Amino acid sequence: MVERRRPIPVQEAIDHVWDHRLPGETEVVSINKSDHRRLADDIIATNPVPSFDKSPYDGFALSSADTDRGGRNNPVEFEIVEHIGAGRVPSVKLKKGQATRIMTGAMIPAGADCVAMFEICQEFEKDGKPYISIKREMSSGQNVIPKGSEIKEGEKLINRGTLINPGVKALLATFGYSKVKVTKKPLVGIIATGTELLEVEEELQPGKIRNSNAYMIESQIIRAGAEYKYFGKLADELEPSFQAVEDALNEVDILITTGGVSVGDYDLMPDIYDKLGAEVLFNKIAMRPGSVTTVAARGNQLLFGLSGNPSACYVGFELFVRPILNHLLGNKKPFLKRVNAVLGDDFPKPNPFTRFVRSYLTFENSIIYAKLAGIDKSNVVSSLAHSTSLLVLPGGTRGFKPGDEVEVLLLDNEQGQEQFY
Amino acid sequence: MVERRRPIPVQEAIDHVWDHRLPGETEVVSINKSDHRRLADDIIATNPVPSFDKSPYDGFALSSADTDRGGRNNPVEFEIVEHIGAGRVPSVKLKKGQATRIMTGAMIPAGADCVAMFEICQEFEKDGKPYISIKREMSSGQNVIPKGSEIKEGEKLINRGTLINPGVKALLATFGYSKVKVTKKPLVGIIATGTELLEVEEELQPGKIRNSNAYMIESQIIRAGAEYKYFGKLADELEPSFQAVEDALNEVDILITTGGVSVGDYDLMPDIYDKLGAEVLFNKIAMRPGSVTTVAARGNQLLFGLSGNPSACYVGFELFVRPILNHLLGNKKPFLKRVNAVLGDDFPKPNPFTRFVRSYLTFENSIIYAKLAGIDKSNVVSSLAHSTSLLVLPGGTRGFKPGDEVEVLLLDNEQGQEQFY
Repeated sequence: MVERRRPIPVQEAIDHVWDHRLPGETEVVSINKSDHRRLADDIIATNPVPSFDKSPYDGFALSSADTDRGGRNNPVEFEIVEHIGAGRVPSVKLKKGQATRIMTGAMIPAGADCVAMFEICQEFEKDGKPYISIKREMSSGQNVIPKGSEIKEGEKLINRGTLINPGVKALLATFGYSKVKVTKKPLVGIIATGTELLEVEEELQPGKIRNSNAYMIESQIIRAGAEYKYFGKLADELEPSFQAVEDALNEVDILITTGGVSVGDYDLMPDIYDKLGAEVLFNKIAMRPGSVTTVAARGNQLLFGLSGNPSACYVGFELFVRPILNHLLGNKKPFLKRVNAVLGDDFPKPNPFTRFVRSYLTFENSIIYAKLAGIDKSNVVSSLAHSTSLLVLPGGTRGFKPGDEVEVLLLDNEQGQEQFY
Repeated sequence: MVERRRPIPVQEAIDHVWDHRLPGETEVVSINKSDHRRLADDIIATNPVPSFDKSPYDGFALSSADTDRGGRNNPVEFEIVEHIGAGRVPSVKLKKGQATRIMTGAMIPAGADCVAMFEICQEFEKDGKPYISIKREMSSGQNVIPKGSEIKEGEKLINRGTLINPGVKALLATFGYSKVKVTKKPLVGIIATGTELLEVEEELQPGKIRNSNAYMIESQIIRAGAEYKYFGKLADELEPSFQAVEDALNEVDILITTGGVSVGDYDLMPDIYDKLGAEVLFNKIAMRPGSVTTVAARGNQLLFGLSGNPSACYVGFELFVRPILNHLLGNKKPFLKRVNAVLGDDFPKPNPFTRFVRSYLTFENSIIYAKLAGIDKSNVVSSLAHSTSLLVLPGGTRGFKPGDEVEVLLLDNEQGQEQFY
């Protein structure tokens, strides 16, 4: 069935999809399994830091009052009554003229209010007992990190939605989060369509190509922080194809089909959407590549019909699927981070429609350059391997030269922004 | 035991460690498990792309010779003898005056050498058979993508050592790599030291803190693409500690200890290195934080003694451990990517030694700015959570102002460089 398609602007397509976003679910995992997950709750300080007055240095804890009038010509003497390493709890309450030998990070003993560093103390023995003398006055609180001075109990440290990286994991450990509430990974179904497709382990046959899009999308899903299930290829008959799509929809949060959405014969997808009772939000976008991207909604469940062309499929996923996955994952900045860069290559082609060009960034002298991935190859797939960003060339522009300022969408997972534009 | 330590420059420390790098191992994984791994072999095109002459459009394949003298007033007629979708193999060899209806991506039938797009063809029926007429001449090869025109068989597409991303995975699938030879993940052992440490699930006790460094390092190891094993805490006695370290060394590729390397009492680590017969490469570096980082080698096996201070521990891992892991992983750019950036904050402190400051990058108007992570907090751990880079402030400098050009090391996994500097 040949279908009429009305192209809509990219932003309008984004908005249609975004209107169907759903909140995600949460689950509790061990801190050991929490890397790269997103926090479902804020991290709150469950105790003050430090949780006791502590020493920043190796030295002797004592009462500053006891150093009164100490000076170059008036050494003050202290008997060392205890010796505590970090993690040892002081057991002796200091009396006048007594001090405790203390290590970095250790707890200040009762009766002490300052720490004299080793360097200013003269150690000696008297009557078989260890002593020190100090030739200066100390002040109360000197060389003491007070309880709660770094973090107050109950302070909010990290917002929910944040990706758990080494620093966040350290915070979780510090505050005893042995179990962590994280957002659940959405499950994304993948269905390939196209009689021409062979699976990766199959021998190449005349007229056929191996299915690379399904593997590429799997990897994009993983990069986005979600999980996938591959349902194989659709047969080229309506009834079993419809059944396969409906069955898949019952198992997954989101379904992606790739291919089968060409403008010519044999495209069963429109009939399948129809039979599913899915509303087609749009089936053509004023952009290159990926103009024949279709998105349909059954209730609030989204079906993404991405192009069979690898580069169109790739771009369609990043622009439309990824923000929805990010939202399900609790990411407060679900859209690809957009930055300005200086174009490092020539792009002479005019752009009748918004064009998304495979590219990567380089940094020179504090300036960001965008370079085209695989500019000297027609080979689309190998240029995707080198892409870390998508150059955005607005529709109606006439080509770009090296040195022109351009906009670039970053594909990495650590950054993002609240709106598409 | 209080030890004398001679600080060495950062580059010298890097070189000492680098001299002990070892090649890593490889293993074969299913393409489905290959994400984020590094290729152990180059990806070679196992077939030309396309692997047959194919049509870039929906249209009619025919012989250009048959359109000779076709024109506005001289339509040329063709009988449609076959109808092939993408993936269908043409079965009819075309004779003079015959054409095949063909879909985008489908194989050009024998006897045809060009494709006339639907738009220029007039379809009609004659004697109950389908026909088209064309009012122009076609040239040989017009609208045909020749076999091998995108990629030649045997062409090298991606270098070994490359991280497998969605684009690389698509290439693996395209060329039938259902099994992929990747570099093996090194196993890194972690041992914590310090009587003050509680495990994450323990209740806080006076004078104690929870072990956050081990969790942080676990996460840094995962980010680097390796695997970890946590061996727990060392007791504070020499013999069992030595035994624990030796046992761990027999299980892992690399061993990290954290803490216990303070300049004061109770540090057993030097005695342990001694008893192991390990050569201490250095035990002090002219840098902040992390000056008391120790690295020892037993044969070519490295023991990293990172500081117990979280931020020193973090920096020590990124500067010294990560390049070695990258090398084991076959990464040809094992050192952190160093870029210039404009400082976005004030850093008034003088730098007697090279200083590595937790930071993150922002991009504005094609310019890279480096901002300090957690500048207005004394809280070290929470600033690590926001760090994506390390500002490098050279020793002997007197502080930096907003607008100054600075050097920054990027912590992400996708970039790198061949040398530290």
